[in-house]
Amino acid sequence: MKTIAVLLTNLFEDSEFIYPTDAFRRIGHRIVPVGVIQGEMVWGKTDHTPVKIERAVTDISVDDFDALLIPGGYSPDKLRIHEHIVDFVRAFVESGKPVFIICHAPQLLITAKVLKGRRITGYASIIQDIKNAGATFVDAEVVEDGNLVSSRDPRDLAAFTEAALRRLD
Amino acid sequence: MKTIAVLLTNLFEDSEFIYPTDAFRRIGHRIVPVGVIQGEMVWGKTDHTPVKIERAVTDISVDDFDALLIPGGYSPDKLRIHEHIVDFVRAFVESGKPVFIICHAPQLLITAKVLKGRRITGYASIIQDIKNAGATFVDAEVVEDGNLVSSRDPRDLAAFTEAALRRLD
Repeated sequence: MKTIAVLLTNLFEDSEFIYPTDAFRRIGHRIVPVGVIQGEMVWGKTDHTPVKIERAVTDISVDDFDALLIPGGYSPDKLRIHEHIVDFVRAFVESGKPVFIICHAPQLLITAKVLKGRRITGYASIIQDIKNAGATFVDAEVVEDGNLVSSRDPRDLAAFTEAALRRLD
Repeated sequence: MKTIAVLLTNLFEDSEFIYPTDAFRRIGHRIVPVGVIQGEMVWGKTDHTPVKIERAVTDISVDDFDALLIPGGYSPDKLRIHEHIVDFVRAFVESGKPVFIICHAPQLLITAKVLKGRRITGYASIIQDIKNAGATFVDAEVVEDGNLVSSRDPRDLAAFTEAALRRLD
């Protein structure tokens, strides 16, 4: 059993939360929604899926978790203005533990300045931002580079989740 | 009387459309909502303000307009995946005609690769993207550099609109 932090706020892409976390739970892993305020309800952008933030980012450390999942949508754009969130993301990437990013999630890694020299993919709208951050953008359904596992959008969810599950074995 | 293209799609920040365009109209300027599909209705993100797209970007040229306004919200993120939109933004910036950008609007100029060496401001979440694009980020209510007039967010709308009106004199 592994414990996976899931970084969320309002306007996350529902399927990018539901698909991987359902798969993780089915094989016994524990999901911990992490955000800005403990106990806050946040809502998905497409289907308004409600999620309760279990832990505030200020009350946790990378040591509490085995992996980090960051769903996309507009949640990463909202989260990247919070310094503690960005610090947590940077610490996680630098820890070497698996970090699963999809869609707009690379925006958080750009603000954390941890993408230089890495190979990743992400949503079409942020391709130039990824390149300008010093990363190599790869147009593929899953890109794995060290501890980073990345995908482009909801169409890649099956391959993304399969790659993530392999990292949690 | 000047003719101002306003680049929009769904999830634009309502106030960043309404405040400047109302001011432009009051003194006799003409507003032309420009987007991906002519006749399409698009809606604001906060108050669901409806706007009809008057001209598709593929049917117009920079020569048809005296200035360009790009409101923020999540509209710029949606627009920057469209090559013709990005080409239009690049042509406008390179024409030397005034370009008014606020909030997330710099995302379009990043994808158009026209920010290198420029001084601009923008929404807090995209500061690192602006810097990575080779621009100097300035934390001020209005930043003017050549033909670029930029502001951070709705709190700057009075100063942003005043600066834009001076350029339309």
